[in-house]
Amino acid sequence: MAPVKNGRALFNSYPEGYPVPGETIVYDDSETIVLENVPLNGGFLLKTLELSIDPYMRGRMRAPGSKGSYTGGYAIGKPLPNYGVGVVLRSEHPDVKAGDHLYGIYGTAYQNPVLCTNTDNILNIEFKEYAIRNDLASMQLVKIDNQHNLPWSAYVGVLGMAGKTAYMGWKKYASPKKGETLFVTTGAGPVGSLVIQLAKRDGLKVIGSAGSDEKVQFMKEIGADVAFNYKTTNTADVLAKEGPIDIYWDSVGGEMLEAAIDAANLNARFVECGMISVYNSGYTAPIRNFFQIIAKSLTFYGFVITRIEGEYNEEFYKVMTPLVGSGQIKFKDEKWNGLQSVGDAFLAVQKGTNKAKVVIHVADD
Amino acid sequence: MAPVKNGRALFNSYPEGYPVPGETIVYDDSETIVLENVPLNGGFLLKTLELSIDPYMRGRMRAPGSKGSYTGGYAIGKPLPNYGVGVVLRSEHPDVKAGDHLYGIYGTAYQNPVLCTNTDNILNIEFKEYAIRNDLASMQLVKIDNQHNLPWSAYVGVLGMAGKTAYMGWKKYASPKKGETLFVTTGAGPVGSLVIQLAKRDGLKVIGSAGSDEKVQFMKEIGADVAFNYKTTNTADVLAKEGPIDIYWDSVGGEMLEAAIDAANLNARFVECGMISVYNSGYTAPIRNFFQIIAKSLTFYGFVITRIEGEYNEEFYKVMTPLVGSGQIKFKDEKWNGLQSVGDAFLAVQKGTNKAKVVIHVADD
Repeated sequence: MAPVKNGRALFNSYPEGYPVPGETIVYDDSETIVLENVPLNGGFLLKTLELSIDPYMRGRMRAPGSKGSYTGGYAIGKPLPNYGVGVVLRSEHPDVKAGDHLYGIYGTAYQNPVLCTNTDNILNIEFKEYAIRNDLASMQLVKIDNQHNLPWSAYVGVLGMAGKTAYMGWKKYASPKKGETLFVTTGAGPVGSLVIQLAKRDGLKVIGSAGSDEKVQFMKEIGADVAFNYKTTNTADVLAKEGPIDIYWDSVGGEMLEAAIDAANLNARFVECGMISVYNSGYTAPIRNFFQIIAKSLTFYGFVITRIEGEYNEEFYKVMTPLVGSGQIKFKDEKWNGLQSVGDAFLAVQKGTNKAKVVIHVADD
Repeated sequence: MAPVKNGRALFNSYPEGYPVPGETIVYDDSETIVLENVPLNGGFLLKTLELSIDPYMRGRMRAPGSKGSYTGGYAIGKPLPNYGVGVVLRSEHPDVKAGDHLYGIYGTAYQNPVLCTNTDNILNIEFKEYAIRNDLASMQLVKIDNQHNLPWSAYVGVLGMAGKTAYMGWKKYASPKKGETLFVTTGAGPVGSLVIQLAKRDGLKVIGSAGSDEKVQFMKEIGADVAFNYKTTNTADVLAKEGPIDIYWDSVGGEMLEAAIDAANLNARFVECGMISVYNSGYTAPIRNFFQIIAKSLTFYGFVITRIEGEYNEEFYKVMTPLVGSGQIKFKDEKWNGLQSVGDAFLAVQKGTNKAKVVIHVADD
């Protein structure tokens, strides 16, 4: 019945530009917890196993009173919240028993679909080793039925928010037709790599870009017809040669988006999933060739996964779990060890120096 | 059997920035024609009555080899082509008889849906008083059944390309829901004024902007709930007070589009119809807040009427003709007299100094 350390990754200061490890997010081990008899008050005790680091989190690191976005801002001094997987150690909750594995938002409920302008929605259970939770629905936690014995990290990547983003965005907005050409940015990431594989399954020609030769190699392994390193190869040149493109999957914005607009075919669809190029620079990268939306009859769909997942969640797990379980859909994780690594891991994701989907491995099962 | 003058408005030089009257377009009266016996070679002789001046025409005034757009470039030294109405004086064509009135593109066949990069598609029968034509379909001419005795100018405005743009764009992209809010720019123009009326018929709150108090007055007459002069009133202030907006009808682009993005509601639809703000400045006005497409789950639809009108043409005339004929849908024309006025009229449309839909009245019936 000895207390054990309950380490936490705390949001420590609002970054200007890129986040700074050791400053933006800090590790704290001052809390302890007695696992055997901490009061549950009708809830359950969750041990964190894997946590997801996602590009969009940068948008939540904004001061109260600044312009709202689609998620709540992070509160200074509190553990970060994001998606994760944990295992139940003890439970007084009727729907949860010890040994259950849960996936979901670790620590915050999305204020969806309203625009969030403050930090009111931040709860106190977040990026930490152990947490007491009490309600599944309002915290968006779901039980994992791991019938294919996948690593738990898969459930925060290809079968988590990133996988849902790719699958549901592709399903709802891309309108793919066999023989068409897709251009996808961040093609080695958890979203882009699934988009590549879905597009190949639908019979499209796929052009993928990423920021390292290793990522290019991975895009080729999962089926991209054309894969290039945008840091060493001119995007416009590739698209001029391999395009025009019928679908652009955008996770970058800015100049890559402009290049895609220039290379778009008539009636092309633009799936606006993310804009990593603007997250650390004030969100103001200009789009200077937007008139082509008219000249080429383009359609642009912006979306946030939490607003559409209700439509597709059931289908998603039904279709994707066996495809991932059987290896027909491939994925790649990059594990970082412990909550101490969150600050560095987060910077890597913002800069793109990671090699694959970043997962914080907090504890073994 | 005396020859008569066959005046023409010729495209004379590629403008840089705004077109220059007397330079960009010149009037020429050196040609003559003998109406009674000019050989028809199986075709018909058409007397031009009304011609349309439209903002988009600026995009066709580009040098060969410059970036393509959705219409063919104009050829130097040739009559301009655009929409018009004419009456048949003589005919050897089986489908056309003297006295028939025809609406359509006067002088060019759209290269649709390919992107046009050159002037190959320019025919020799265009902005002139008399023309010999030989085929209805390939020249996109249709017979007018003027059962409501509307002025012929109506058929190049509210019942012409502009009316189709408003009606079909609204139908296909706007997804209006009763109680929602629309913001429409150039609300006193032939497209915007019809959009206002369609939106009111669908039960929306309508905010309209235009560039003069007279235009503001017209927007109010046709039902706009909020109408303002963007030159004397701050657009962002109006939208902050009267928004958020669920539908933005864009004929302007640039800063007005940015203001609309800032004022957009979640899931708002942007109908991208035109961008008059960029036509005379190199098409490069930046959009700096495009990230909001994601944060607010916005959808942007770019379109060109000639690519979608086939779907809706029959419905359009069936629904709109009685509405216009009975006065339930209102419209306003501004007539300019004779082909001599084309250069000035065209500049007025580009600068927005016109007061309503500009029509060149070439001849009485």
